[in-house]
Amino acid sequence: MLSTRANRHYYAARLNAFRTRGADGAPPTVAEMIAAAGRVGGLNAADLNYPDHFVRNTPATLGQILADYGMVLNGLAMRYYTDPGFAIGAFTNPDPATRRAAIDLTKQGIDALAEMGGRLMTLWMGQDGFDYAFQADYRQMWDDTVAAIAELADHNPDIDISIEYKPNEPRAFALMPDVATSLLALKEVGRSNTGITLDFAHVLYADEMPAHAAQLVSRHSRLLGVHLNDGYGKRDDGLMVGSVHAVQTVELFVEIGRAGFEGVIYFDTFPDHSGLDPVEEARTNIRLTERLRAVAEGLANDPALATAIESQDAARSQRIVAAALYGA
Amino acid sequence: MLSTRANRHYYAARLNAFRTRGADGAPPTVAEMIAAAGRVGGLNAADLNYPDHFVRNTPATLGQILADYGMVLNGLAMRYYTDPGFAIGAFTNPDPATRRAAIDLTKQGIDALAEMGGRLMTLWMGQDGFDYAFQADYRQMWDDTVAAIAELADHNPDIDISIEYKPNEPRAFALMPDVATSLLALKEVGRSNTGITLDFAHVLYADEMPAHAAQLVSRHSRLLGVHLNDGYGKRDDGLMVGSVHAVQTVELFVEIGRAGFEGVIYFDTFPDHSGLDPVEEARTNIRLTERLRAVAEGLANDPALATAIESQDAARSQRIVAAALYGA
Amino acid sequence: MLSTRANRHYYAARLNAFRTRGADGAPPTVAEMIAAAGRVGGLNAADLNYPDHFVRNTPATLGQILADYGMVLNGLAMRYYTDPGFAIGAFTNPDPATRRAAIDLTKQGIDALAEMGGRLMTLWMGQDGFDYAFQADYRQMWDDTVAAIAELADHNPDIDISIEYKPNEPRAFALMPDVATSLLALKEVGRSNTGITLDFAHVLYADEMPAHAAQLVSRHSRLLGVHLNDGYGKRDDGLMVGSVHAVQTVELFVEIGRAGFEGVIYFDTFPDHSGLDPVEEARTNIRLTERLRAVAEGLANDPALATAIESQDAARSQRIVAAALYGA
Amino acid sequence: MLSTRANRHYYAARLNAFRTRGADGAPPTVAEMIAAAGRVGGLNAADLNYPDHFVRNTPATLGQILADYGMVLNGLAMRYYTDPGFAIGAFTNPDPATRRAAIDLTKQGIDALAEMGGRLMTLWMGQDGFDYAFQADYRQMWDDTVAAIAELADHNPDIDISIEYKPNEPRAFALMPDVATSLLALKEVGRSNTGITLDFAHVLYADEMPAHAAQLVSRHSRLLGVHLNDGYGKRDDGLMVGSVHAVQTVELFVEIGRAGFEGVIYFDTFPDHSGLDPVEEARTNIRLTERLRAVAEGLANDPALATAIESQDAARSQRIVAAALYGA
Repeated sequence: MLSTRANRHYYAARLNAFRTRGADGAPPTVAEMIAAAGRVGGLNAADLNYPDHFVRNTPATLGQILADYGMVLNGLAMRYYTDPGFAIGAFTNPDPATRRAAIDLTKQGIDALAEMGGRLMTLWMGQDGFDYAFQADYRQMWDDTVAAIAELADHNPDIDISIEYKPNEPRAFALMPDVATSLLALKEVGRSNTGITLDFAHVLYADEMPAHAAQLVSRHSRLLGVHLNDGYGKRDDGLMVGSVHAVQTVELFVEIGRAGFEGVIYFDTFPDHSGLDPVEEARTNIRLTERLRAVAEGLANDPALATAIESQDAARSQRIVAAALYGA
Repeated sequence: MLSTRANRHYYAARLNAFRTRGADGAPPTVAEMIAAAGRVGGLNAADLNYPDHFVRNTPATLGQILADYGMVLNGLAMRYYTDPGFAIGAFTNPDPATRRAAIDLTKQGIDALAEMGGRLMTLWMGQDGFDYAFQADYRQMWDDTVAAIAELADHNPDIDISIEYKPNEPRAFALMPDVATSLLALKEVGRSNTGITLDFAHVLYADEMPAHAAQLVSRHSRLLGVHLNDGYGKRDDGLMVGSVHAVQTVELFVEIGRAGFEGVIYFDTFPDHSGLDPVEEARTNIRLTERLRAVAEGLANDPALATAIESQDAARSQRIVAAALYGA
Repeated sequence: MLSTRANRHYYAARLNAFRTRGADGAPPTVAEMIAAAGRVGGLNAADLNYPDHFVRNTPATLGQILADYGMVLNGLAMRYYTDPGFAIGAFTNPDPATRRAAIDLTKQGIDALAEMGGRLMTLWMGQDGFDYAFQADYRQMWDDTVAAIAELADHNPDIDISIEYKPNEPRAFALMPDVATSLLALKEVGRSNTGITLDFAHVLYADEMPAHAAQLVSRHSRLLGVHLNDGYGKRDDGLMVGSVHAVQTVELFVEIGRAGFEGVIYFDTFPDHSGLDPVEEARTNIRLTERLRAVAEGLANDPALATAIESQDAARSQRIVAAALYGA
Repeated sequence: MLSTRANRHYYAARLNAFRTRGADGAPPTVAEMIAAAGRVGGLNAADLNYPDHFVRNTPATLGQILADYGMVLNGLAMRYYTDPGFAIGAFTNPDPATRRAAIDLTKQGIDALAEMGGRLMTLWMGQDGFDYAFQADYRQMWDDTVAAIAELADHNPDIDISIEYKPNEPRAFALMPDVATSLLALKEVGRSNTGITLDFAHVLYADEMPAHAAQLVSRHSRLLGVHLNDGYGKRDDGLMVGSVHAVQTVELFVEIGRAGFEGVIYFDTFPDHSGLDPVEEARTNIRLTERLRAVAEGLANDPALATAIESQDAARSQRIVAAALYGA
């Protein structure tokens, strides 16, 4: 997918993180957000949101803007929250017409993606869930979701459809809250152009160990996307990489390296939510990630570490990891 | 399984909850715990733990004691924690000999169960998990677990093997933490005499809505056991039924009624952990459960509720449920 | 504070919950939101947000609109998020000028409140916190917060300043995350016209039992506001009253009844986040609340319940409560 | 308190962590556990549990054993769980005689401590709490707890009484669940020989940032003890130091260094719960701690870090910390 490489790895950042710096108070255009991302240095890929980022831009224009800033397109991500009709559900909406509208909007997104030469459509189905006992027919919601994903996968077999799970928010319970539920659903979908996007903070929030989640994905489906960030595991914090779970991030890199993941690392962080400079914040993410990746490469084939893991001897494995990561 | 019924429903309680009342300070015998459970009135079934409850009793003796107190055997539950060698894992132990010992011990439990004429073996694999990044080979642990369950299912096809999941404790991460992971594993196991036991407090702790978890089980496997209790969703509280999530308990009863579950309701509560009288506590569980079941039966075919759910209109469905449950 | 009463209790609802029903797609005016709230029937009080709701309306106009719909003013709540400069903190902002602007804005809100004849200013200081280790000087943040509250309390001694705590969001850690931290801060503030607003879902999220939190407030400060809703304790769900924690809501009513709280019950729920009809949703809140209040009044002086509580005998107390609440 | 120092810092480990290695299957004696701790190398202090560790040993004998292994006594910790009568509460027990027994047992512990020349008595009041709404009289529990602590502080003014808080377990809600509640209680106690022990995993579990909790303690009371370990913030994991929250541990060291804390670092970890070798595990804890302390010393007076913190610029502060900790 990413054939020519200016530097060794591909990195993207959440474009909307650069939304806070509108010069005159007006919200910045997509081009301005991409330009801001370009100032980071080291961001050489981008994800765009559909339909938000396409409201005032054609796919061709957006492709040109990315090229101007030396960025490849990683893929598109659907955003259903622009239409209040989707608040109670997109693929799980009780109204068949609204459900159809959600599927059709996604197909338009897939078409835009294909027009831009991209291959990865990410679905975060945050509004597809429930808040109350006795609110919804769980069987129907599941059926509708599986059917929708299958239809979308069939719409264009060259496009990969990736599920980005998250336990909740905006709904109290998401229908696709964690890795195993998403994998169960994809088994029913039964299409080879489907898979999973892991968002590090979502994974923590779902009480999962990131490398273990990645291993489950590799075993049962395909790992299509990695969103890196960090958090405290109690909500979707969107913090900078390595600010909390550095050891767990290193292990994730070892695991996805073994799985042959060579896609873009997308920084899904929220500097805009707490007034941080997004350019400096992205620079910190890149620097930390490069360092944690290097540690992971050093550990991936360490025979002493392999021996400790074979006997589940964490007292030794933690010392080996700490020596590599902390110089301890 | 439960052919003659003295009363309408079958209820069992955690026998070890009655352990606190040893007359002379010595730990009570299994017979004494069963006798204490018999004083509750309304407990007409029992689960026994293997090997704990069989250390000083043969299967035949235990069967006779149960019969003396008018209780049928619901099944056995494995307890691996008696052997410190299993602390780092039973089916996932890094040592092949210990792993084999765990499987063989379980087979002995299955044999004892068969000898007593029971059909349900419950596996809570609490020690099978990990505490640290870089502690274990996730792929190997999964392979070993799937192989162990398959071997146990094949040991006696007349016995159902049921997985009781729980997010953690004693390990920081359990390998079978939630409903979907357990279902993924059972799909790989591929044996029809396997299924899931839902423990209400574990389900809450795993961030799941109980009726939704039950629906997922019915769709992908078989619901073999229901452990009722309550909690605040942040740990395995083991509180009395209906003390927190009454609405969600009613919904669970509606769902398992639809699934045709007619097994024992097992009260997995911890009166002994906080000094409550286990006899009075069990009486409260039975009374609350009977009431919540009756509400569920009234709501199961309520057309107004069905209409509200069809449109996911929680404002109306909550009023209907509240009228039935709270008299609001 | 509320001298003439059309009905027995005072209820208010979050006005912005009625924002979704703009006729022509444009956001509704404050008057339209109040009118929508008026359609509920039973909402006889309102809280307004400062400065949001005052941008196009004078205090006098808003007072007249409320009167037109038969609503008394419960108070104002500050909203700092309209100014992106406050994203990294209002009272804790590292920039002294921004900190001053936050205090001055709040004083303007207090003045508007006084002009309308109200007495309660609620402060939810959600942006005052931190996301990272090594981000902030904890001592300075605390000093600045205590000084700001004291200055605001002194600005108009006839106005009560109430702290509405919440564990996090938008910041990973709020400086005022729970009841005890807020009470510690108010002890340092040392002004009698300060107190606490309990939001039920925030309280659950902070791992607190609502009645216990209310008791701590009564002991150490003053209970100035009660926001009712419900949730699962893992985030600020904003669900309808009694949809999860009915027993705990009843206990809260017993406790605040003992404390003599006679203020408005404010429904801080989010029907707009998941597409529910806010009018029907508010009706459900009122109906449930009236019922749970009636149960609380029946239990408040129940001698059998008092006896059970005296010996901490939850097996008996739960049966008594269940009989009153569930008819069990 | 610790006048002669063999090496630079004082470290202790949970003695019961060494309980798993009984030679003949019998539980090891206290002397054997101390001997095992001595094999670690680098553990030069110890805490003893009262009454457990004194059942078969006099204070004088225990003092001699410690001296034999080159360990100083850090202090004693009360353990009320040996008596099932305390299951529903020690200081908060509804039975006045049992409450009195808990206080008297603690006084005996204080006397034993004084006899050994120690100064620190740690109280973890895990059983003092509640499980249910309508179980307990919150006001009475608080009164009883404050009175008990005051009486214990007065029993021997040369002994410091330290509260080790924890959100729950074994009770669903502890009365002293977090730092601010404990500080509120100590303000009411009003004795200068009282303070707080921070347990890192308890602090995370209570949703607190460790350095912030330490700052609150310094501001409002005295920091008397530091229990180091790690975890994922969802329970009391008791993992090895630095295995998850290394950055937050470094910040804690900076903060307690500023507060002048020179006491023992006590490793409150659970190698025995998951079959790890406690000697190797303790060695890992020491090595990691020494490294994180060194990083903290380097950062404590770093002017660039101070500047970044002054403006709450986490993008820069994380880069500075990462350079020191990870070599990034």
